[in-house]
Amino acid sequence: MSESASPSYFERHIFFCLNERTNGQACCAQHRAQEAFERCKSQVKALGMAGPGKVRVNKSGCLDRCAAGPVAVVYPDAVWYTYVDASDIDEIVESHLKNGRVVERLLTPPEAGR
Amino acid sequence: MSESASPSYFERHIFFCLNERTNGQACCAQHRAQEAFERCKSQVKALGMAGPGKVRVNKSGCLDRCAAGPVAVVYPDAVWYTYVDASDIDEIVESHLKNGRVVERLLTPPEAGR
Repeated sequence: MSESASPSYFERHIFFCLNERTNGQACCAQHRAQEAFERCKSQVKALGMAGPGKVRVNKSGCLDRCAAGPVAVVYPDAVWYTYVDASDIDEIVESHLKNGRVVERLLTPPEAGR
Repeated sequence: MSESASPSYFERHIFFCLNERTNGQACCAQHRAQEAFERCKSQVKALGMAGPGKVRVNKSGCLDRCAAGPVAVVYPDAVWYTYVDASDIDEIVESHLKNGRVVERLLTPPEAGR
């Protein structure tokens, strides 16, 4: 990868796939991804972690790892998570976004793709 | 930042802010962000650069740097771009996404936020 001269604008930037498919194929939106995104965003804000130099919580289109959905990715760390419920989101916020510790048990299987 | 043990699933992952505001405030969608996203995506595909271990082109919600919009960010490099037209997109594809060279002239001003 190429290196940026300056530090990342957001220390940690998490993207939640909120893609919704209407053709019957699996998609993250079927798995309450919107709810997870909103929970993450509100917690980050409540903890005072939102903003430049800190954390940004974003929605995104299809992240193309549907087989492992619902997924979210934390950059610039490039760490992918497959979450199930609200407590998973809370753990990602507390452990990774706040303290920089990867939540091993929620890591997306390395080979899981579309 | 915390370090991931494994390489990034996508070598380079670019997110285009496609946020649309309806309250009269500035937003990337006013600046043909959708068109830029589609051009980037189709070029990456045409060049055979799309896929795991390679490049992913994504749409995202508001990236919160509206003052410098339209913006896109390349991760894990954490390099932000402010583009204007199609030739800017072509240069980002050819220089950064394909060859790992940052396009200095298109870098978003470091302090530009919402």
